[in-house]
Amino acid sequence: MKVIEYRPAPDEFAWTFGGVSPVRSVQPGEALALWTEDCYAGKVRTEQDLVSQVCEFPFLNPQTGPFYVDGAEPGDTLALHFVSIEPATDVGAATTVPFFGTLTSDAQTATLQDALPELVWLYELDNAKRTVTYRAKSAELTLELPMDPMHGTVGVAPAALEARSSLVPDSHGGNLDTPEMRAGVTAYFGVNVEGALFSLGDGHARQGEGEACGTGVEVAMNTVVIVDLVKGTPTPWPRLESDAHLMSIGAARPLENAYRVAQVDMTAWLSELCKVDRMDAYQIVAQAALTPVAQVCNPIYTVTSKIPKALLPAAPAYGGIHAELRAQAARLR
Amino acid sequence: MKVIEYRPAPDEFAWTFGGVSPVRSVQPGEALALWTEDCYAGKVRTEQDLVSQVCEFPFLNPQTGPFYVDGAEPGDTLALHFVSIEPATDVGAATTVPFFGTLTSDAQTATLQDALPELVWLYELDNAKRTVTYRAKSAELTLELPMDPMHGTVGVAPAALEARSSLVPDSHGGNLDTPEMRAGVTAYFGVNVEGALFSLGDGHARQGEGEACGTGVEVAMNTVVIVDLVKGTPTPWPRLESDAHLMSIGAARPLENAYRVAQVDMTAWLSELCKVDRMDAYQIVAQAALTPVAQVCNPIYTVTSKIPKALLPAAPAYGGIHAELRAQAARLR
Amino acid sequence: MKVIEYRPAPDEFAWTFGGVSPVRSVQPGEALALWTEDCYAGKVRTEQDLVSQVCEFPFLNPQTGPFYVDGAEPGDTLALHFVSIEPATDVGAATTVPFFGTLTSDAQTATLQDALPELVWLYELDNAKRTVTYRAKSAELTLELPMDPMHGTVGVAPAALEARSSLVPDSHGGNLDTPEMRAGVTAYFGVNVEGALFSLGDGHARQGEGEACGTGVEVAMNTVVIVDLVKGTPTPWPRLESDAHLMSIGAARPLENAYRVAQVDMTAWLSELCKVDRMDAYQIVAQAALTPVAQVCNPIYTVTSKIPKALLPAAPAYGGIHAELRAQAARLR
Amino acid sequence: MKVIEYRPAPDEFAWTFGGVSPVRSVQPGEALALWTEDCYAGKVRTEQDLVSQVCEFPFLNPQTGPFYVDGAEPGDTLALHFVSIEPATDVGAATTVPFFGTLTSDAQTATLQDALPELVWLYELDNAKRTVTYRAKSAELTLELPMDPMHGTVGVAPAALEARSSLVPDSHGGNLDTPEMRAGVTAYFGVNVEGALFSLGDGHARQGEGEACGTGVEVAMNTVVIVDLVKGTPTPWPRLESDAHLMSIGAARPLENAYRVAQVDMTAWLSELCKVDRMDAYQIVAQAALTPVAQVCNPIYTVTSKIPKALLPAAPAYGGIHAELRAQAARLR
Repeated sequence: MKVIEYRPAPDEFAWTFGGVSPVRSVQPGEALALWTEDCYAGKVRTEQDLVSQVCEFPFLNPQTGPFYVDGAEPGDTLALHFVSIEPATDVGAATTVPFFGTLTSDAQTATLQDALPELVWLYELDNAKRTVTYRAKSAELTLELPMDPMHGTVGVAPAALEARSSLVPDSHGGNLDTPEMRAGVTAYFGVNVEGALFSLGDGHARQGEGEACGTGVEVAMNTVVIVDLVKGTPTPWPRLESDAHLMSIGAARPLENAYRVAQVDMTAWLSELCKVDRMDAYQIVAQAALTPVAQVCNPIYTVTSKIPKALLPAAPAYGGIHAELRAQAARLR
Repeated sequence: MKVIEYRPAPDEFAWTFGGVSPVRSVQPGEALALWTEDCYAGKVRTEQDLVSQVCEFPFLNPQTGPFYVDGAEPGDTLALHFVSIEPATDVGAATTVPFFGTLTSDAQTATLQDALPELVWLYELDNAKRTVTYRAKSAELTLELPMDPMHGTVGVAPAALEARSSLVPDSHGGNLDTPEMRAGVTAYFGVNVEGALFSLGDGHARQGEGEACGTGVEVAMNTVVIVDLVKGTPTPWPRLESDAHLMSIGAARPLENAYRVAQVDMTAWLSELCKVDRMDAYQIVAQAALTPVAQVCNPIYTVTSKIPKALLPAAPAYGGIHAELRAQAARLR
Repeated sequence: MKVIEYRPAPDEFAWTFGGVSPVRSVQPGEALALWTEDCYAGKVRTEQDLVSQVCEFPFLNPQTGPFYVDGAEPGDTLALHFVSIEPATDVGAATTVPFFGTLTSDAQTATLQDALPELVWLYELDNAKRTVTYRAKSAELTLELPMDPMHGTVGVAPAALEARSSLVPDSHGGNLDTPEMRAGVTAYFGVNVEGALFSLGDGHARQGEGEACGTGVEVAMNTVVIVDLVKGTPTPWPRLESDAHLMSIGAARPLENAYRVAQVDMTAWLSELCKVDRMDAYQIVAQAALTPVAQVCNPIYTVTSKIPKALLPAAPAYGGIHAELRAQAARLR
Repeated sequence: MKVIEYRPAPDEFAWTFGGVSPVRSVQPGEALALWTEDCYAGKVRTEQDLVSQVCEFPFLNPQTGPFYVDGAEPGDTLALHFVSIEPATDVGAATTVPFFGTLTSDAQTATLQDALPELVWLYELDNAKRTVTYRAKSAELTLELPMDPMHGTVGVAPAALEARSSLVPDSHGGNLDTPEMRAGVTAYFGVNVEGALFSLGDGHARQGEGEACGTGVEVAMNTVVIVDLVKGTPTPWPRLESDAHLMSIGAARPLENAYRVAQVDMTAWLSELCKVDRMDAYQIVAQAALTPVAQVCNPIYTVTSKIPKALLPAAPAYGGIHAELRAQAARLR
């Protein structure tokens, strides 16, 4: 398999999905070995580097890409299989940003209150032990949390001639911020424009569900991804497949609508895979789905619907592409 | 340990939290062996028993109780430890009800559309294999799902002189519908009135997260619960403790507010247990909490915030009462 | 017409809708001349009387009533015609209360931020000029605003065996906080229990739409109301009729659901009055309804749908009872 | 005053705010006499022209523009004064569209229910009588409603390098769909990019508040607008000024957030105009603001906060530019 290495120069980042020319072309079946910058564009290095002072809006969530996928057309599905997602540094930064995050008022949930304190927590990463270490600021407390690397932003150019900030998720993907976007997973996105124009970034060494403070443990990443294409099959909302689960991601507001979108998409998907009608699929979803919150801090919220594949009849999604990509990934390592 | 057996007569059910006289008194430290009726008040027995025809609103979610806990006063915390929750039947019923559930318009999300079809799915329960079996109506499909018994409603009399329908959850507990309310868990509720006046019901043999169709696999239950009291310690929102997790349950609308309430409560709880300030606790929650949706179908929605105890310093909640109750439960079996 | 005068003694107030014994019986066709206490139970008299210090939760929004209406049964509609609503004092108080109001986080929209300052603004009332005078605290600024007296809370005992705090609105009425509840208006409520058990309170000398700070210009009121009954006609949500408008009030969360409920109810009402189908009535609502926000600060939000009667065919609502009550009211003055 | 006439050719429409080259340049102080196509791109002419059949997504809400305003830079405010907005036809069309509108499930409030019927209502416009005539489909009913012409979409290029569909409103304006955008009003928008790049379209002969069915009475318009610029003064959210009112428009989800954004912006505006602090301005807003819902059908909802200027001290907004533009408009007619 051909592996294309690409590390963007400082002026090569994209800040939107859509509205940007591709940096490279890639053939379905090829792999990319990419470096992605952290969400702060690398500007938060110490506990004194407050986002409101060192970062410049909207130059956050720098995207590596977009990549033009040869042959991708509207109505197709782009499949991105994450072979590996590995922190490129040994320290990650989580922050609070004034009027950003879930447990504070923000631009939409607008109040007259003062902002919470603006802080930076630096986490030590231990790639061997697979831990990230939290240190409290107000007391002597150290917690070792499991490393669980993931990408916050992955997506394609949106429909309707739009260009969306890389801070926003929607049906094109983007800032989905689900911890399920980890190595070993195949992500499916509906193609809206010729070439799909996908990009990725915003690596997290780990993230709590909901991303309550507005960030994960943010790091630059070295990521290997295999690119593939399912011709003639549309995908309405971002979907993920791991060895264990099928997942649909809903993006909407309020949060119950993100839940509804994810569950309606999963109902349609199960109806097709299990060859049952809408109501029977609804019933499976109602009794079998897990629905972790992904994030509640971006301009649009996200929820994941997760069904254990072991509970379902053997019915490979997208023609069994995930298993094929897993096999290819095994040969890459 | 004294175990009080109680099986309500048909006219002894409560239909609200608050506004009802107690059926029994219980001392802290005593156990109750209870039978609870299913959410349909036992009226859905066949696939032809449609809820809108056989059930009479508001006579749903019949409550076993309330029980008067000697010595319980406002400002205390009631601890209920679930020793066992076992289906009392070998068949459970899940249903759709017109304009009830998540993937339909309802009384609050009101639209002009027609209702979805009203259906009953009967699930076979196998207590030995610990499975519940789904059968599709529109095709030959059978799925074995893991049995995971739980109570949808557990709670105390509410504050502010209110009486709330057993269909509604809020800070007093009630129709929380979280699958985390299973055997082995200790549930904590703030006491609002003398005697606490707790009750429980609405057993599910299992439930998907969000309870999307409006019901779980509904069954009558045989449940053993140890009752205890933490004097002088208030609890603002329902909390759960298992051997593995600390959990806070937020109840609010829209769903992001249920998330916020759960995470704000967990932040306060961790701040106290870990002896760190509010911002440090917020950071732990942001990177370590799991936040499964509990239900998105009742008049008020619920989300659970879950923190693995293994990640935290050894700091027993409520003075270590969960471990004590686990030990007592072991002696009961 | 018989006019019953009633001024509650300090220990005669109700604090809930439902769960309380009636203070008086009244026959349909009789009038009541009532005094209602202000929302603070009379405890905010100076700018130093902060609600969090002088008031005791849940003893807010004291209700005058409930009144038992002879002959009222579930399935009937109670009609309350407001003959007059006049401030009983010459000063009103608006306040901010920690974590209460719209432009602050609150119990449901929970954040970790500090509360806004707690303040009292005293307004001078001029009953002759019909003004209330605002005085800024931070500068020399005085504004004369029109007096527009109204009741924040009017309602009946709720369904489903519930008792609801007088701080909460829902389909039974309660803390609706719409400025449309003024003299000259007939309010319609569906009867849920024998005798209807209505009460009222929470007078405002005026209120902005949404009641953003959590209170209006709060005053005790002298109110004359004619009580009538429409037998055999249910009313699903509170409705109002003035000489100029038909109004439906939706109560739900999030706010779009309060809007939906109000508009769906208005669609059904217009369908009946105009003898058109659901889609035609929807179209009238879509092009002709005004939809002012009522309040966005209580546990459940409210929106009013308002249709100018002049745009509609002559089709008297509830058999023309509003015109009859207007005529009776004219004879009372 | 120079008046530039411009009628776009069929291939000259814009479908987004941002991401499009300007069609003309205009100097501050010049007027434009424009023609705007209706929201359907002119394709709904009869009751048989169903939107789902004759229109092609995303080619809806065609924009006349964008116009490059000489000298406009980020940090400035664009002032657009509507001299006249007159229907260019004698028939308008309101429609229902599957899964679009407020009283139906939609792409975000996703359910499994069937769509409402898809219908077209044609309204006769009488420019002399200033009426639009509704005809029921299910019965013999004709209603004459007041003509009240307005533009649904007016806005500038957004910030953050984005291009947004003309179906979406946000802080850049766009599909605000407030009936307050009528002749005699000055609209203020913060400039995000050089030249501001404003456009407009989506004329309604009238619209109910909330635009419940998803459309107003949609018509092509002949509109005269004077363009002006307030240098060095930013405007965070769209604002309107009429002879009678100051208005702020909030765009967010859920609807209470649109309310919050509008009221927080109005609080800041009044604080500046009345020279009082934040809490005093909050109090004015709380007791004096009207808050009609604008629309509850687009991807982001809008609410307007309206303060009668007569209640405020004489404090001209933006240096009194509205009065100047009114005077200029008078000379144009």
